[in-house]
Amino acid sequence: MTVSPFDHPLLSGLLGDEEAARHFSVEADIAAMLIFERALAEAEAEEGVISRDAGVAIVKALAMFRPDTAKLRDGVAKDGVVVPELARQIKAAVGEPHGASVHFGATSQDVVDTSLVLRLRPAVEHISLLLSENVVRLTSLEEEFGSRALMAMTRMQPAIPMTVGDRIASWRSPLERHQQRLEEQSSRLFAVQFGGAAGTLEKLGDKAPAVRAALAAKLGLGDAPQWHSQRDALAEFAAWLSLVTGSLGKFGQDVALLAYGGTEIRLSGGGGSSAMPHKQNPVKAEALVALARFNATQLAGMHQALVHEQERSGAAWTLEWLILPQMVVATAAALRLSAELAGQIESLGR
Amino acid sequence: MTVSPFDHPLLSGLLGDEEAARHFSVEADIAAMLIFERALAEAEAEEGVISRDAGVAIVKALAMFRPDTAKLRDGVAKDGVVVPELARQIKAAVGEPHGASVHFGATSQDVVDTSLVLRLRPAVEHISLLLSENVVRLTSLEEEFGSRALMAMTRMQPAIPMTVGDRIASWRSPLERHQQRLEEQSSRLFAVQFGGAAGTLEKLGDKAPAVRAALAAKLGLGDAPQWHSQRDALAEFAAWLSLVTGSLGKFGQDVALLAYGGTEIRLSGGGGSSAMPHKQNPVKAEALVALARFNATQLAGMHQALVHEQERSGAAWTLEWLILPQMVVATAAALRLSAELAGQIESLGR
Amino acid sequence: MTVSPFDHPLLSGLLGDEEAARHFSVEADIAAMLIFERALAEAEAEEGVISRDAGVAIVKALAMFRPDTAKLRDGVAKDGVVVPELARQIKAAVGEPHGASVHFGATSQDVVDTSLVLRLRPAVEHISLLLSENVVRLTSLEEEFGSRALMAMTRMQPAIPMTVGDRIASWRSPLERHQQRLEEQSSRLFAVQFGGAAGTLEKLGDKAPAVRAALAAKLGLGDAPQWHSQRDALAEFAAWLSLVTGSLGKFGQDVALLAYGGTEIRLSGGGGSSAMPHKQNPVKAEALVALARFNATQLAGMHQALVHEQERSGAAWTLEWLILPQMVVATAAALRLSAELAGQIESLGR
Amino acid sequence: MTVSPFDHPLLSGLLGDEEAARHFSVEADIAAMLIFERALAEAEAEEGVISRDAGVAIVKALAMFRPDTAKLRDGVAKDGVVVPELARQIKAAVGEPHGASVHFGATSQDVVDTSLVLRLRPAVEHISLLLSENVVRLTSLEEEFGSRALMAMTRMQPAIPMTVGDRIASWRSPLERHQQRLEEQSSRLFAVQFGGAAGTLEKLGDKAPAVRAALAAKLGLGDAPQWHSQRDALAEFAAWLSLVTGSLGKFGQDVALLAYGGTEIRLSGGGGSSAMPHKQNPVKAEALVALARFNATQLAGMHQALVHEQERSGAAWTLEWLILPQMVVATAAALRLSAELAGQIESLGR
Repeated sequence: MTVSPFDHPLLSGLLGDEEAARHFSVEADIAAMLIFERALAEAEAEEGVISRDAGVAIVKALAMFRPDTAKLRDGVAKDGVVVPELARQIKAAVGEPHGASVHFGATSQDVVDTSLVLRLRPAVEHISLLLSENVVRLTSLEEEFGSRALMAMTRMQPAIPMTVGDRIASWRSPLERHQQRLEEQSSRLFAVQFGGAAGTLEKLGDKAPAVRAALAAKLGLGDAPQWHSQRDALAEFAAWLSLVTGSLGKFGQDVALLAYGGTEIRLSGGGGSSAMPHKQNPVKAEALVALARFNATQLAGMHQALVHEQERSGAAWTLEWLILPQMVVATAAALRLSAELAGQIESLGR
Repeated sequence: MTVSPFDHPLLSGLLGDEEAARHFSVEADIAAMLIFERALAEAEAEEGVISRDAGVAIVKALAMFRPDTAKLRDGVAKDGVVVPELARQIKAAVGEPHGASVHFGATSQDVVDTSLVLRLRPAVEHISLLLSENVVRLTSLEEEFGSRALMAMTRMQPAIPMTVGDRIASWRSPLERHQQRLEEQSSRLFAVQFGGAAGTLEKLGDKAPAVRAALAAKLGLGDAPQWHSQRDALAEFAAWLSLVTGSLGKFGQDVALLAYGGTEIRLSGGGGSSAMPHKQNPVKAEALVALARFNATQLAGMHQALVHEQERSGAAWTLEWLILPQMVVATAAALRLSAELAGQIESLGR
Repeated sequence: MTVSPFDHPLLSGLLGDEEAARHFSVEADIAAMLIFERALAEAEAEEGVISRDAGVAIVKALAMFRPDTAKLRDGVAKDGVVVPELARQIKAAVGEPHGASVHFGATSQDVVDTSLVLRLRPAVEHISLLLSENVVRLTSLEEEFGSRALMAMTRMQPAIPMTVGDRIASWRSPLERHQQRLEEQSSRLFAVQFGGAAGTLEKLGDKAPAVRAALAAKLGLGDAPQWHSQRDALAEFAAWLSLVTGSLGKFGQDVALLAYGGTEIRLSGGGGSSAMPHKQNPVKAEALVALARFNATQLAGMHQALVHEQERSGAAWTLEWLILPQMVVATAAALRLSAELAGQIESLGR
Repeated sequence: MTVSPFDHPLLSGLLGDEEAARHFSVEADIAAMLIFERALAEAEAEEGVISRDAGVAIVKALAMFRPDTAKLRDGVAKDGVVVPELARQIKAAVGEPHGASVHFGATSQDVVDTSLVLRLRPAVEHISLLLSENVVRLTSLEEEFGSRALMAMTRMQPAIPMTVGDRIASWRSPLERHQQRLEEQSSRLFAVQFGGAAGTLEKLGDKAPAVRAALAAKLGLGDAPQWHSQRDALAEFAAWLSLVTGSLGKFGQDVALLAYGGTEIRLSGGGGSSAMPHKQNPVKAEALVALARFNATQLAGMHQALVHEQERSGAAWTLEWLILPQMVVATAAALRLSAELAGQIESLGR
């Protein structure tokens, strides 16, 4: 046990996913924040909000910038968010006369939320690839064993014979729908957050739309009105993550029940026991159920966070931080495990 | 208090919604089940699965059929689902020689799940109308007060002035996205469930696709492969319901906080107190927060139910029954309350 | 399906519990509220807060009082709580000159919360009896089959042989601990709520302690300082309910898995299928799992309601109403089902 | 953001607690596991289950033992639990002829669950001290400001004046009840887990009770029958943690609302904004609300894990790992923050 198994040196071997987790490291977060500040300076310089010299100075300083992380930690403890102290450090690094042009017109939430979206994008690409891999693996299983007989089980009792293909379809079809759902929501999810202190970009005057559009373009994100107090895209995404792990949990549960019955599945590479060397435990199948129930649990918290007071709720926003990254990693881990589990199925049906 | 405020004669005055709730009455459920059995008999007669005479006899008997509800209750207690006893009663009503053609090739879950979808459809139409009404009301508010000043509040502290229109946009924009989301998921949600004992329609042979298509057409539902153990469309819909109430909860919370501060909003029709006649409580605003947190809580249960074992999980299926209808009514009630609350706003901003 | 299966004429046959549910009917709620108002009038008359004549007049009027429920419903819709309108009706029934002595010094929450506690008490007695019955039933099973062999299953795989008694102990021991837990928390749960408008009983002056003590004594509840914004006893009780259903869910899951394997258990009275007459479904075992997962889900909402703003949070309070009664009935239903399920076990082990 | 803010170098400055978190490090976990194995060897040697020489050899080897953590990670990935590989490494370190006496009669769950309890104990002591500190701080506040006037707020509207002491009592009283609750449940929580492969200690014969008692005594834990599939003490503890954070969330919410209104509280050390230097954000108050909602959310998952199949559910057990440590750290962090927040209150009431 550790505070989070996703960060645990040992347990993450089972429950974690390195590729997904690395997007939530402090290094990745700060790197994305600096990318935001750089793109903002460039956009504002192009649109004449800050001077070209200021833009050049900021870009140059950011290229060399290394934050003082001890002070960042103190800053979070005091301000509840890392950006005030980070912006202060960047301004100091840029120095006079251009320091005041750093982070111009932006607020903490612009940086934190856009950094999140910038990192969710590759994490989702990774998840999407894993999802496709799962579809392929299940299709392969269907090709190999699909025509064999399998006893259909309803209410945990034998019903009538069906085929292995019937069962595999119940594992694969939801995953294909999840692919479609992801496509539908992507444009809502991958949008820049840029609103300034209260969402009005009041410091940018009539140049606000152009700066935001340029910023979004530089970041490769969609241009959209600020959503700092509208968290529906994140809550929708969390539900999607839980849909994915829920479907994989069903796969895991089914495999564990097949292994429990014993004759219709043959699995390689089961887990060992410290007390009973003869055992072959369906460890990955069980982990899929655990991760499904974990994400289903977390989802409630992400939806509680929809009640986001006024222009910025520290409480609701912080609640997202406590939950969403773990849901992402749980989903990636589940997809990795399910692909591996599909690969361990040596025989299915009879 | 009662077992559920949504069914409570007094509390449903605040927390319920009659139009949504009536689709979950036992009468509505049985009526939808009989519609399924009738459409099935017609479809099977047309495709030659049962005789034309049997089809006619079943349709005729169903028109006069009145169930023995005491026996249905006993049937649920014994079988965990109403259909075995209901089908027995219908068969008895049809009598010889066509009784055996009733419910032919179908199973309990086909009837129960399709009945649910048949009733969700008008409930969702109702919700969709209420959603549009909310958008209209908020647009009206914006037209009336949008250009006034409002103090932006971040982290529950005054930030900088903005306009009332800025705030209203944060209430209305999510609702417009929810409209789009509903459209995207509708085809997944409103699909017939027809699979027979194990999802394979084994009794219908090569006529299965045609019967299912005809059944779906008669019911006005989409034709799709059975989804009896794939509950993702329902879990997705539950998340949508919670997105809607979550956004309305933010509206309610914001109104309550405006009323708390006191000078930027004027509300008519606040609730009274039994101890303090001077009070004007923002009751509907509070109820919106309660319903948002309720649905967010419930959502976890609907996603736990994704771990649906094998061809039919009595446990996971029953869990849906305990949760989903309440989420639907909570959403309708929240939309009704928020439209009313918007109508109570006599002044906003300054 | 209905809004809540606990209120549903058919589904409550499986999932409901009449004895527990009747304490949450509108009749029971109003009756308990009137008991509060009567006891309050008596206590206040005894302590000289209101005149003896007023006390007599109120008691007399309450004996004949029948509320106008249509107006109560409207009152809830407007005030968010039934008491202002109910108190108005009672005052009218008492008439001049004593009407103003009705509900003197009390507020809505005093009435609603104390009514809840007054009704929880018999509901908990019922639950406690059912819990004892379950312990007895499991003890009987142990006496009958305890020495037989049973294959221990770890991670859903055969481990080593043990005895039936070993398994039954894992079902019964938690129930015995739940009995102890209930005893520990009873004095916290069964306490009167009486605080007046803001919890200070400001209208009663130095007679407040004596009135509250007398009121508590008349109601058979513990005397304790007001807890209107301190909801920990209710949240603790909700956790206890979920502990009970969770333990019963394990019993249900184990029975379903035993029945799945097939040779180590023999159950009578399994549920039938509309498609497969040969089936004997472990319906009650599955319902236990569903109710366990339901209560576990709800528990999160009761704990969200701990964040109860200031002296009275309409939002948090209403959230409790939406959740707690259902948890109580779910627990009673689960206990009823588990006792029945234990009675259906005709043979266990080998 | 990171996978878990509790492990995050920056965010843990606000949301973490070092003293609590260190009990969940991999080092602390392995150290506790080795303490278990050592105490087991000693107990078994004393009772003659293994030879005295074996006991001495094991104790000696453990004193020098350093695990190969890369292999432990692989072991978790394969076996779902670290113990099989850890036991293998310890046996290799002990070598012939005593290696086979290592971990004798025990199973993975004995080691993991007892290690958890061994580490929960100091974490709970830490939490208990923080809880006492909070009671003291609130008592000091009451002594300083208790007699001042404060406007009572019900349903987020001014009600009637009361005193600051009335409000502080609503913050402090629940904490005092939580102290009592902790005492009640401690004997259930701090019990050794020792059952062997299936809970029957089958390898120890009639010496099982004596070995378990000796093991418990050496570890300073209560001696109790195995509870490997009875998770009620952990679920009860999780509910306790959520009760604590829920009460603190109410404190935080109240402080944020006081600061929102503005004249009745004066706070030092508010958080700054990157866009608005004038702001003093009640960051710690908001974090308390976030942590309360986080724990309330998690609690549902811990109660889902009560449905623990048969003698060991890999799925339910793993779900606990994903949740419980974070709840412990969230609680410690909330207690630390609330004590600090109480210390920031420079003035309360008027």
